[in-house]
Amino acid sequence: MSKGLMLIISGPAGSGKGTVNAHLIGSGDFVYSVSATTRMPRPGEVDGVNYHFITKEDFISRIENGDMLEYTEYCGNFYGTPKKEAIAVLESGKNLILEIEVDGANQIKEKYPDAVLIMLLPPSFKTQEQRLRGRGTESEDKVLARLERTREELADVSSYDYIVYNYDGKDTEAADRIRAIVDAEKSSIRRNPNVRDRYFED
Amino acid sequence: MSKGLMLIISGPAGSGKGTVNAHLIGSGDFVYSVSATTRMPRPGEVDGVNYHFITKEDFISRIENGDMLEYTEYCGNFYGTPKKEAIAVLESGKNLILEIEVDGANQIKEKYPDAVLIMLLPPSFKTQEQRLRGRGTESEDKVLARLERTREELADVSSYDYIVYNYDGKDTEAADRIRAIVDAEKSSIRRNPNVRDRYFED
Repeated sequence: MSKGLMLIISGPAGSGKGTVNAHLIGSGDFVYSVSATTRMPRPGEVDGVNYHFITKEDFISRIENGDMLEYTEYCGNFYGTPKKEAIAVLESGKNLILEIEVDGANQIKEKYPDAVLIMLLPPSFKTQEQRLRGRGTESEDKVLARLERTREELADVSSYDYIVYNYDGKDTEAADRIRAIVDAEKSSIRRNPNVRDRYFED
Repeated sequence: MSKGLMLIISGPAGSGKGTVNAHLIGSGDFVYSVSATTRMPRPGEVDGVNYHFITKEDFISRIENGDMLEYTEYCGNFYGTPKKEAIAVLESGKNLILEIEVDGANQIKEKYPDAVLIMLLPPSFKTQEQRLRGRGTESEDKVLARLERTREELADVSSYDYIVYNYDGKDTEAADRIRAIVDAEKSSIRRNPNVRDRYFED
């Protein structure tokens, strides 16, 4: 069986990232990478599902042991991707989804060049704005902050491998495109360097 | 509307290339590139369908005018891919399928780096052999010559972009994989260098 692909799926607020990823995971071929964090669980959050909640000492020792594929510090807490778990999923043949941001994506690409970086986008900034306002759940300040943040998130978009547009804000079309990317990557000569030898093997 | 992709689909005898390509073309999104040749039509061959049958003078002047994307000479006759027709198909948004061999594929990749080179293969050499013999339509000599030729055809396989296996010798699975490759390529950052500017456009 062939190894799974490590997919980094990033996207600004309103890209429908969570819904698209949930759709992929629901199919059984994709597994969500659960991040480790040093922050306290919020009500309803389950250890090992939403995050691996670990101590700062544990987190730092994991960084030192090279067991974090990427990490970042935010508001005094660490967030990162445990490496062993990620590798185990890939070895099982499942594709791993990491829902992380541009900085983390670039950290991973350096350590694990086989990772596939996908940026999920609404069809346009205008549509993104409409979606965020349409939710009606956030203050104007928060909407503006999210929109502003999108400019930073896209500053480095050229380091990504693929752009996938989420046209309808739902899940199926973008999820299908991500599946197509996985299938194509698995057929790429880059991932099959020994094709000739294998072909003539008995 | 986005431009179509130029797909070069090569494959040894028994790869099911013709069937897979016919399946793609039947869907309406793909157009077959009709080669030009200086050889005489065989009974049943239709000008403009099987080939563009042209004179040697015409062929040579097209080479000189840069209107052949690739060409080759075989048994005293020229075979080549007319450029104008190819470009017109791509501009219309349809994907163009060129069913050509390794040499021609490399010629095209040089002149038109946006071309996508796909090698279609039976799952193994052994299966290829079984398929060719199973047809029962060719002499042992011819079968052996085709099998031997496969070694040459795969010598340069690393210059291809993708390997697609035709597992069942039919059409749908391999055709679906080729569609996935087209979708993924169209989403690649390489083909969408201005994604950021376009995103923030009004």
